[in-house]
Amino acid sequence: MIIVLKENPDQKQLNNLTDWLKGMGLDIHWSKGESTTIMGLVGDTTKVDMALIEALDIVERVARIQEPFKNANRKFHPLDTVIDIGGAKIGGGHFQVIAGPCSVESTEQICGVAVDVKAAGAGLLRGGAFKPRTSPYAFQGLRAKGIEMLEAAKEASGLPIVTEVMDINHLPLFENVDVIQVGARNMQNFELLKELGTMDKPILLKRGLANTLEEFLMSAEYIMAGGNEKVILCERGIRTFERATRNTLDLSAVPYLKKQTHLPVIVDPSHATGIAALVRPMALAATAAGADGLMIEVHNDPAHALSDGAQSLKPEEFSDLMGAVKAIRPYSHQYHKGQ
Amino acid sequence: MIIVLKENPDQKQLNNLTDWLKGMGLDIHWSKGESTTIMGLVGDTTKVDMALIEALDIVERVARIQEPFKNANRKFHPLDTVIDIGGAKIGGGHFQVIAGPCSVESTEQICGVAVDVKAAGAGLLRGGAFKPRTSPYAFQGLRAKGIEMLEAAKEASGLPIVTEVMDINHLPLFENVDVIQVGARNMQNFELLKELGTMDKPILLKRGLANTLEEFLMSAEYIMAGGNEKVILCERGIRTFERATRNTLDLSAVPYLKKQTHLPVIVDPSHATGIAALVRPMALAATAAGADGLMIEVHNDPAHALSDGAQSLKPEEFSDLMGAVKAIRPYSHQYHKGQ
Amino acid sequence: MIIVLKENPDQKQLNNLTDWLKGMGLDIHWSKGESTTIMGLVGDTTKVDMALIEALDIVERVARIQEPFKNANRKFHPLDTVIDIGGAKIGGGHFQVIAGPCSVESTEQICGVAVDVKAAGAGLLRGGAFKPRTSPYAFQGLRAKGIEMLEAAKEASGLPIVTEVMDINHLPLFENVDVIQVGARNMQNFELLKELGTMDKPILLKRGLANTLEEFLMSAEYIMAGGNEKVILCERGIRTFERATRNTLDLSAVPYLKKQTHLPVIVDPSHATGIAALVRPMALAATAAGADGLMIEVHNDPAHALSDGAQSLKPEEFSDLMGAVKAIRPYSHQYHKGQ
Amino acid sequence: MIIVLKENPDQKQLNNLTDWLKGMGLDIHWSKGESTTIMGLVGDTTKVDMALIEALDIVERVARIQEPFKNANRKFHPLDTVIDIGGAKIGGGHFQVIAGPCSVESTEQICGVAVDVKAAGAGLLRGGAFKPRTSPYAFQGLRAKGIEMLEAAKEASGLPIVTEVMDINHLPLFENVDVIQVGARNMQNFELLKELGTMDKPILLKRGLANTLEEFLMSAEYIMAGGNEKVILCERGIRTFERATRNTLDLSAVPYLKKQTHLPVIVDPSHATGIAALVRPMALAATAAGADGLMIEVHNDPAHALSDGAQSLKPEEFSDLMGAVKAIRPYSHQYHKGQ
Repeated sequence: MIIVLKENPDQKQLNNLTDWLKGMGLDIHWSKGESTTIMGLVGDTTKVDMALIEALDIVERVARIQEPFKNANRKFHPLDTVIDIGGAKIGGGHFQVIAGPCSVESTEQICGVAVDVKAAGAGLLRGGAFKPRTSPYAFQGLRAKGIEMLEAAKEASGLPIVTEVMDINHLPLFENVDVIQVGARNMQNFELLKELGTMDKPILLKRGLANTLEEFLMSAEYIMAGGNEKVILCERGIRTFERATRNTLDLSAVPYLKKQTHLPVIVDPSHATGIAALVRPMALAATAAGADGLMIEVHNDPAHALSDGAQSLKPEEFSDLMGAVKAIRPYSHQYHKGQ
Repeated sequence: MIIVLKENPDQKQLNNLTDWLKGMGLDIHWSKGESTTIMGLVGDTTKVDMALIEALDIVERVARIQEPFKNANRKFHPLDTVIDIGGAKIGGGHFQVIAGPCSVESTEQICGVAVDVKAAGAGLLRGGAFKPRTSPYAFQGLRAKGIEMLEAAKEASGLPIVTEVMDINHLPLFENVDVIQVGARNMQNFELLKELGTMDKPILLKRGLANTLEEFLMSAEYIMAGGNEKVILCERGIRTFERATRNTLDLSAVPYLKKQTHLPVIVDPSHATGIAALVRPMALAATAAGADGLMIEVHNDPAHALSDGAQSLKPEEFSDLMGAVKAIRPYSHQYHKGQ
Repeated sequence: MIIVLKENPDQKQLNNLTDWLKGMGLDIHWSKGESTTIMGLVGDTTKVDMALIEALDIVERVARIQEPFKNANRKFHPLDTVIDIGGAKIGGGHFQVIAGPCSVESTEQICGVAVDVKAAGAGLLRGGAFKPRTSPYAFQGLRAKGIEMLEAAKEASGLPIVTEVMDINHLPLFENVDVIQVGARNMQNFELLKELGTMDKPILLKRGLANTLEEFLMSAEYIMAGGNEKVILCERGIRTFERATRNTLDLSAVPYLKKQTHLPVIVDPSHATGIAALVRPMALAATAAGADGLMIEVHNDPAHALSDGAQSLKPEEFSDLMGAVKAIRPYSHQYHKGQ
Repeated sequence: MIIVLKENPDQKQLNNLTDWLKGMGLDIHWSKGESTTIMGLVGDTTKVDMALIEALDIVERVARIQEPFKNANRKFHPLDTVIDIGGAKIGGGHFQVIAGPCSVESTEQICGVAVDVKAAGAGLLRGGAFKPRTSPYAFQGLRAKGIEMLEAAKEASGLPIVTEVMDINHLPLFENVDVIQVGARNMQNFELLKELGTMDKPILLKRGLANTLEEFLMSAEYIMAGGNEKVILCERGIRTFERATRNTLDLSAVPYLKKQTHLPVIVDPSHATGIAALVRPMALAATAAGADGLMIEVHNDPAHALSDGAQSLKPEEFSDLMGAVKAIRPYSHQYHKGQ
């Protein structure tokens, strides 16, 4: 970290600053020019609050040189993390597709989808039991019962299951869940992240709607700082001015994150676009960009037209997509080869 | 709600749709033109999921006519809500300033600030005990001890206290807290909102960084749907491309929200701008725009230079600001007079 | 277009509205419910100003059913437009890569790059002669001389040339330019668009930094309304809160635009990301998503280290990329097959 | 400007960089630590392209210490610029309201509004002759005839006139226009800015929809670098995810700009919000925040209901607003007093 001081700084305030920095175990490397004095901080600067320093009267500017995350940082962990989920590996060249309905609705529904998506090549089953909804009057998910149905589908299909947690107090219900998902709205629910950091279970962390990639990595760092290093990052679209799609899928996040971190990075084109016709092209694009996996909404109940969400694929569309993904995978961008 | 159908819709799918809508207790008013058929839904459409309907093959477009919130809606509750916080009233012409430090650091600090801001005219004391921080390595607040210190400051000054909750499990600690604050990152922590809806305590709900005003009102609706109607809305800046300020303070939110809802609306210029020099002009602007109150960061420890955050005012600056706010209040925009 | 009236509208104002609409040649289809009256407008509503109507006291809401663009609309022109640029075809299954340096610097430089990128498989040569720069003190391009150098490179390599125009008055210099580029900052320079609409030359229209896809298509419509139907759309990133990349590449724009319009859609990953290491993965992603071409910055002067911009590829990197693009093309999403 | 080098930089590339920097007339102040080497650039760094340097393999990070604008910079010109427009002064404590219709429609209309707004206290008349419209099929303004009508209104009322230019070639028509407005979409039409820099006429420069405040000041710098120092900055809302208002009015821009520059700063609440009911509160807020003036849309033709745009005030509403603005002015934030 570099601190650029204003001209003729107040000496007492400067002493306060240097004492405080040294108290944090940092060495200071001074560089005094004609009009500008620069302090270079040497040591672990992850605990240093940039905004606090920049607010001081004597400080002109502060610039960070090192990333504020450690456990998630590829510089310190150059090899890809590979996460094994009941035999389904992700990361380090292993590619997985997580598929299933938006909401778990019944045992028949979720078991049916599970069998269908497994046949098409999916490696994990997804399904929402706890549903974050903008309106208190909208369907909030089957909750505990939904998780039981997911467990039945796991038994019926052999697929590991992924489902979202919305509150620390629900975690006991997730004992047989293979991957706990943190939704976009909870990416900075720091108490939840800390609790997940104490568990020995893979966490699928979705990027928040308005969170930078650095903040995304810092939330992974929250989980990893607690000891749980099994974090899967998921880009699912950010909020911008564009209204044609529900969110704006930021696919540059894939190669950018792969460069910064050793964690697996997957993409959810269903929630990102909110339009079924865009899921296939964006899934292929994510694969080509070097994602380690995909998360795709699939529904299997053509008779029940109304539960067929705007962004869900039918099983046959999903199967067709899986074929295209497999065809494109060998030609996709690979971090180690391409950079 | 209006549903515009595509030309020649599949009759079976249309029957499914009409049955489903009628099953929700809605009446349908048909309007068939040459090429376009329009369904007008009459009844309580708050439970109807627009996205679900818009996803149907037979549907061209869906438009909502009524707001999806009821308890928070001024149409149904034309009179301003007035919330009484231990004698300090807010809303309906009552204006309150909530002031105090970003973080509670010690009993001396918080009691000192409390006395100072009360003398300057503040009606409530704020101070962070639980601190949401982007980095797991940054100071996370004094937590339970911080709340105890706030309680001491309440006793010393007589000011009601406002502090942020980050997790449902911490709520027992908030028994003597007068107003529970929900931070921007928790605006859509729906489980927390539901729990707060069961309490008999005023809730200060901050707008999320990337949340629309409609979503803001829907989160208030979550709390109110549970029976707790004491919700104070707080605009604190949204995330945009601009980097000169930490966030972009959306002051239009004040008159817009006042038009849509009967709840009090306040503004936090400290967090919105992140720059002490901008707090005063934005506090005056918020007052002129018709806000029901302000939330201002004030620090009182000039000797301890480093704890003086970028966005905090010194007590004398705060006192000066209070004078200017009082001068401008009589000429501010008032909902009932101005509209 | 549908107009929903408020309850008990003022009759005189309603007469004004209906007269005005009929004066524009529109038929009105009335639908009167208990509390809501809906006016359905039949005819060419492209000239109707929605905002104007929505502002009326008697109007509750206005919803557009048809897109406001005609010439660019795939509904009216289902077949892909194929544009022939001196033998290089783009659109309708024809894929082209436009490559070259950010700025034209010298005849040697541009001719060298031209030969290199042609050898690697590029179909067109790009190079900036007029450079839009944020600072008046930055290099503004070689202007007229730069275009002469591009013409020399065209002769040397046989590649058609693409370069940006910044002002109507410069157009006479573009006589031998094969494709005139409209930069992001000029996407809504309507006078320029109108002038380009009178020309018989392909126009490469870049999306503005803060423009929706609908506005993008409306700007294409400006050119086409003047009679010039040779418009190539180029997604080049939009401005969001994210700071890791220069802009946020909105790849969903590719399949969305392909669905809405018959015009060719290409992607510029160099300007979108601003980071050389992200160009290759995003170029592959764009190809997989079904783009009709790419625009890539390539530099050929390794000795002159400083002119090697952050986002430019070296010729060997570009050649490698072209190989990967060709490998991925057969498996990419195709509008007619996939939708 | 500070350049932080990577560890063990390639010596040849480093020599290239130092030679290039010295060639630009800059002195380099070296600071070599254990692992980090920092280059401090002394001299006029406004011409140095940060992105270019940051792209070099040997560079870790670049940080600017000084603002890239000079003529507009308050550091070098501490006193407020006062611009005299035919007797109406703006800046340096002088406050002006510019009022009038969105579009000039007829001589009667514009003369009528002129007389009305003058009576209410407006100092300048606005009216659109050239209209930037998203759709080529929408009304494009009366153009040359509109300017003639404005001139008639100027004669009738004595008010100086402000109107927007859309293209360099139209400038001869602006001879009798008192203030030339550059619209948001042309804020970075650099050729136009350069041309305006050669004129001796006040320029009202509107902020672009997606432009940062630094870019805004750089566009003012374009005009001033040509010799024309009469630039008025106008905040008119930026584009964000929020849909309740047309744009998001960024009022923090007022005190931020006043701190950075000596130029007058005004606010246009009509275009920013797009909703008549929000114009008054936002006009008062802008005044309180320390703006040097306002730009307000006013219409005077109650009989012709349809031309009454969503964001225009009626003359009596405007007159009422002027009274409130005058009442609030004495208590508004003032740069010199408040900072």
